[in-house]
Amino acid sequence: MSDDRDDAPAAAAPAPLPTPADVRAAAERLAGQAVETPLLRADALDERIGGRLLLKAEPLQRTGSFKFRGAYNRLSQLPAGAGEGGVVAYSSGNHAQAVAAAARLVGVPAVIVMPRDAPEVKIAGTRRHGAEVVLYDRSSQAREALGARIAAERGAVLVKPYDDFHVIAGQGTVGHEVVRQCEALGCRPDAVVVPAGGGGLMAGTGLAIADAWPGTRLHTAEPDGYHDHAMSLERGRRVGAPGAQAGSFCDALLAPIPGELTFAINAGRVHSGVAVSDREVGAAMRAAFAHLKLVVEPGGAVALAALLAGRVETAGRTVVAVLSGGNVDPATFRAVLEQGDGPGAA
Amino acid sequence: MSDDRDDAPAAAAPAPLPTPADVRAAAERLAGQAVETPLLRADALDERIGGRLLLKAEPLQRTGSFKFRGAYNRLSQLPAGAGEGGVVAYSSGNHAQAVAAAARLVGVPAVIVMPRDAPEVKIAGTRRHGAEVVLYDRSSQAREALGARIAAERGAVLVKPYDDFHVIAGQGTVGHEVVRQCEALGCRPDAVVVPAGGGGLMAGTGLAIADAWPGTRLHTAEPDGYHDHAMSLERGRRVGAPGAQAGSFCDALLAPIPGELTFAINAGRVHSGVAVSDREVGAAMRAAFAHLKLVVEPGGAVALAALLAGRVETAGRTVVAVLSGGNVDPATFRAVLEQGDGPGAA
Repeated sequence: MSDDRDDAPAAAAPAPLPTPADVRAAAERLAGQAVETPLLRADALDERIGGRLLLKAEPLQRTGSFKFRGAYNRLSQLPAGAGEGGVVAYSSGNHAQAVAAAARLVGVPAVIVMPRDAPEVKIAGTRRHGAEVVLYDRSSQAREALGARIAAERGAVLVKPYDDFHVIAGQGTVGHEVVRQCEALGCRPDAVVVPAGGGGLMAGTGLAIADAWPGTRLHTAEPDGYHDHAMSLERGRRVGAPGAQAGSFCDALLAPIPGELTFAINAGRVHSGVAVSDREVGAAMRAAFAHLKLVVEPGGAVALAALLAGRVETAGRTVVAVLSGGNVDPATFRAVLEQGDGPGAA
Repeated sequence: MSDDRDDAPAAAAPAPLPTPADVRAAAERLAGQAVETPLLRADALDERIGGRLLLKAEPLQRTGSFKFRGAYNRLSQLPAGAGEGGVVAYSSGNHAQAVAAAARLVGVPAVIVMPRDAPEVKIAGTRRHGAEVVLYDRSSQAREALGARIAAERGAVLVKPYDDFHVIAGQGTVGHEVVRQCEALGCRPDAVVVPAGGGGLMAGTGLAIADAWPGTRLHTAEPDGYHDHAMSLERGRRVGAPGAQAGSFCDALLAPIPGELTFAINAGRVHSGVAVSDREVGAAMRAAFAHLKLVVEPGGAVALAALLAGRVETAGRTVVAVLSGGNVDPATFRAVLEQGDGPGAA
């Protein structure tokens, strides 16, 4: 926390909101624990968008997604005595692995509540990081209630996936690094596009970007049907998205409505939200495979998908997109590659 | 070139050999042009080898492989007047794309002679970088003669893929970066394992590593049947490998015999060579997919494959492996993923 909290636009919200200073403090806490992921680029992608495209490669982050940043920032500040009961979290997978890995690092036990239909790679990854996994049925059980019950039974601290002060500040280190890396390249992006599920990555990243570059436009990217940020930003209040009949294979981005804290931050900073189809997401995953040599999961590819699909103006501009994670089952990745029309097709 | 050339062990060879100072000069030349690729790691891989494994991620290099380093170092030092006829190179693909991209950067035309059965992704990549591609038939045409004829006809400079002073010095920047990155981590590897085709990457990298860490063991890694470095290092002279009846899918590593310059450097510095099967290479590609989120081509994965297969002692040790490239066709990558036994299988 810092003394410039009053600058936050959502001062009306009762819960305290993190500030750019909290993001900087998180960056110091994460030094040596999180990976400072590279900003990647490729001539072929610049040609595709007719501008300069820089991609923040969070699949290379510890546990394979940006979620480690927020989880470690949260767990490294557990209140005294909270360690005994450990921590509990609910997550479709990336937050799960992140909390498991962070818990092992700070030396507390972790229980993770995951949907039975989560990607196998994410369930296996969570167990490999030493956590106890409790599976639940998405259709018949409420994960929040299950998480709360386990927390109560074990005296464990519940680590929320996005609507948490320290989690948001930790995710903001993505933006903090983007600012430093772009400045080392001597460039200031015209726009930054960030995948949004509950909005924690956008909120933290937005804090850092808006602080450094007030003129840079921020956009959320979401799957069609789960574009609750796009709708909420347009209406100026939190609304749920309709969902999609066919569902979405962006398993990481199915949060039904923006978080309260995250939206309080995003509402004043994010220009608008864009949405993409599963087909466009697949094309972006193939482009990352062909031109960046990076494995990106469906939810991690929505910002790149939005740019390649022309949802954000890119001609002659410098744009940063966050590739937020790479935890995808081999079978899903194979199917995505198979949908391409040939080598390098996207 | 530098004044410590006399330190090179192969002083008997007639052609001048690059020294560690030449590698440092190449690093200065490449700054801002080549990517300083990250050293990646994953808990799961450390557990697999029972030690500490650091992976130099050259798939993230410009043009998708380390070859850009040598090509740019060579082309940025073309003799005056050599620009008009341009450059010509023969290559199965990675050197091709690298020379094409470097030629565009220094502003000279490039003709690349490639085998008709090279991976489609490599042929397309070479054309995308603006080069003219001449395809030849591996079984009936000698690429060296074709390259020499085109060079003579056009007055172009032939850029050899590995047996070249400046190409070797450029590839050595991989080792130069490994030294700086490991020192920033406060570690000194016990061993460094490097894929070998003609041996240029091993030679350059070996110059830098042996100079900084004389006690670190160097190993080449090759596909079974194409392990001419392993055989030549054991016998102390350049010998050809038998080839493999079934061929190898490591298209980047099919050079039949070590280069003259490269072996003159490697003979005095490299401890021994190890060889791996196609099956072991596939397992390494799946491990890189699952745990590093990196796309690695077959030839780029042989060093990791050798470590995962236990060919080099790793228990309790710190080992660096170079992942040398990521230019692989989607169909090949899909087939490799399909051979796995499930998520994270390797």
